[in-house]
Amino acid sequence: MNDKLQKYFPDLFSSHAQEIHRLYKQKLEEVAKLQNNCSSAIARQRKKIKEISVSLQEYVPDGDSHSCHASLSIHRERSSAFAEMESFLPKKNGLYLNLVLGNVNVTLLNKQSKFAYKDEYEKFKLVLTVILLLFSFMCRFIFTYRTLDAMFNFLSVWYYCTLTIRESILINNGSRLVVFHHYVSTFLSGVMLTWPEGVLYQMFRNQFLMYCMYQSFVQFLQYYYQSGCLYRLRALGERHNMDLTVEGFQSWMWRGLSFLLPFLFLFWQFYNSITLFKMAQLPNCKEWQVCRDVRLLLPGPLHGNVFTTLGVVYQKYRN
Amino acid sequence: MNDKLQKYFPDLFSSHAQEIHRLYKQKLEEVAKLQNNCSSAIARQRKKIKEISVSLQEYVPDGDSHSCHASLSIHRERSSAFAEMESFLPKKNGLYLNLVLGNVNVTLLNKQSKFAYKDEYEKFKLVLTVILLLFSFMCRFIFTYRTLDAMFNFLSVWYYCTLTIRESILINNGSRLVVFHHYVSTFLSGVMLTWPEGVLYQMFRNQFLMYCMYQSFVQFLQYYYQSGCLYRLRALGERHNMDLTVEGFQSWMWRGLSFLLPFLFLFWQFYNSITLFKMAQLPNCKEWQVCRDVRLLLPGPLHGNVFTTLGVVYQKYRN
Ligand SMILES: CC(C)(COP(=O)(O)OP(=O)(O)OC[C@H]1O[C@@H](n2cnc3c(N)ncnc32)[C@H](O)[C@@H]1OP(=O)(O)O)[C@@H](O)C(=O)NCCC(=O)NCCS
Ligand SMILES: CC(C)(COP(=O)(O)OP(=O)(O)OC[C@H]1O[C@@H](n2cnc3c(N)ncnc32)[C@H](O)[C@@H]1OP(=O)(O)O)[C@@H](O)C(=O)NCCC(=O)NCCS
Repeated sequence: MNDKLQKYFPDLFSSHAQEIHRLYKQKLEEVAKLQNNCSSAIARQRKKIKEISVSLQEYVPDGDSHSCHASLSIHRERSSAFAEMESFLPKKNGLYLNLVLGNVNVTLLNKQSKFAYKDEYEKFKLVLTVILLLFSFMCRFIFTYRTLDAMFNFLSVWYYCTLTIRESILINNGSRLVVFHHYVSTFLSGVMLTWPEGVLYQMFRNQFLMYCMYQSFVQFLQYYYQSGCLYRLRALGERHNMDLTVEGFQSWMWRGLSFLLPFLFLFWQFYNSITLFKMAQLPNCKEWQVCRDVRLLLPGPLHGNVFTTLGVVYQKYRN
Repeated sequence: MNDKLQKYFPDLFSSHAQEIHRLYKQKLEEVAKLQNNCSSAIARQRKKIKEISVSLQEYVPDGDSHSCHASLSIHRERSSAFAEMESFLPKKNGLYLNLVLGNVNVTLLNKQSKFAYKDEYEKFKLVLTVILLLFSFMCRFIFTYRTLDAMFNFLSVWYYCTLTIRESILINNGSRLVVFHHYVSTFLSGVMLTWPEGVLYQMFRNQFLMYCMYQSFVQFLQYYYQSGCLYRLRALGERHNMDLTVEGFQSWMWRGLSFLLPFLFLFWQFYNSITLFKMAQLPNCKEWQVCRDVRLLLPGPLHGNVFTTLGVVYQKYRN
């Protein structure tokens, strides 16, 4: 029977797919070997350059600043070349990714997929920001059920956890994201989630929901800022004729940033921590969240958040 | 200056690393192209085989069961060959992974790294099981602070979330894991986390902690069962002289399984849901978790869990 089939449908038995697959597996092995070679070659050259720099500094007379300069500039030039090369090699996961995902390789091995991933990340943020905005609006102005609040807080916790994972993947792929504030937000949402129903909860609830709505609104603005950045960076990176200059980009960035910053800072963070602090001093404060933890812990990260933003802006200014 | 350096340290300027890197990027592109080819070739052949099967069934006289059989066996044989091929091709993420990680490729492209990943997953479970066991022991018998309970529940939620992510990665890599019960556990821990302090909480707390300790203990036993499975499967897969036969493995597996099952089933699940049900009927039941949600929701998934396990065992029995 098989012979008959083979006669009528030769295609069925053609080993075209098998052939490609064999070739593919072979190439895969070659790539893996090359990856190892590449990594070790880079490591070796790194070591060598370090040794040479050291010996240059030892043997060259102190006055000869010229050679020191030369060695430094070589060092810098090479380092950036190596960093560029390494961005196409699989990279070991950081602590957080290793804990959550384990030892799976999340490096995106070409520029397009890196950009696509960042793009998707921004879209994900946009969609969930809008959902959270509507949700908090609903909780604030329409329904006041504790169960609904808990669902809202669950969603926030999930959202921020997911963000930190995706951001770690981005960082693994060479992004310079600042993610500290998302860990803080995760923690905050966790505290709100476990806050028991009571007078104090009702006191803080409305303010917290307003803060969430405001936060979502700021993220919404940020989305436009970030996607503008991304669009321009891509234009800079992909076209080499540079009809969008780096300077043009920087001025655009600074305009966007100075528009955003007042919103990021505005009194909310301080206002929140002051309210919590006042609540902790009320006589009827029995709930564990406010008394023991919030008073001590919350104002810290909230201000930390502000300082991180300041740090980012300072670094941008120095560059 | 650079010339002088170049004379003394030729190594520094050797483009060995660059050369390898160029080659590597080239190979990387070839591999990407081959991956696409391979996927489309498989898809094409799949379609063709389907067409042929259909036309065979149409044109061959009904009585000719022989040819039907032949077409079926070809179908099956080819399908498994394709599945084998596809396990080395990058695969699209499922819904859950796509939500959490986005569109990053988590396929492990060779057998060793698949085994290593599974191994790491088992170790991760072991470590966290031991930690949770100690933690719940501490909460049950040493300290009774609500804050500590909340920390324990936080850790559980995080652990189960992480497990579901890792398991989705394993499933993406071709594992036949049964993960339903971990989604249930995540939900359970979430409910415990948001349960407000009160009489009912104190009533259920001890039972819940005992249940957690017991659960960790079962997982500990399971670890030995699973790692035994893994070790034997690896031995079967890697050595072709088969000094460990498939039958030997299956008998070992059945012995392990029948040792485990009583522990997995024991009355705990039923006991827990009955307790909750009784508590929901108490007059002083004001807390939202018990009244509205737990009564309706918890017994469902708890029994679902038992049925899943039964299903797995039944499937094993049929094979
Ligand atoms: C101040 C701020 C808007 C500057 O953004 P920026 O101009 O993109 O900053 P940088 O150029 O230093 O960012 C470098 C990288 O981080 C990204 N980035 C920084 N902060 C980001 C954020 N909150 N969300 C998304 N991406 C961010 C940039 O896109 C860029 O990514 P890339 O290297 O992959 O291209 C940003 O750092 C920020 O939002 N900080 C948090 C402050 C905050 O939210 N505080 C109050 C609410 S809790
Ligand atoms: C019953 C049970 C022990 C059977 O385990 P098993 O013999 O490994 O089952 P299978 O052979 O069908 O498993 C196939 C795959 O799933 C894995 N697997 C199944 N259940 C697993 C579990 N709970 N943890 C880890 N791996 C599991 C196996 O290792 C195997 O993986 P692989 O394809 O990557 O090699 C397992 O299904 C189980 O634990 N179910 C949950 C029941 C439970 O925990 N209920 C009560 C507490 S809530």
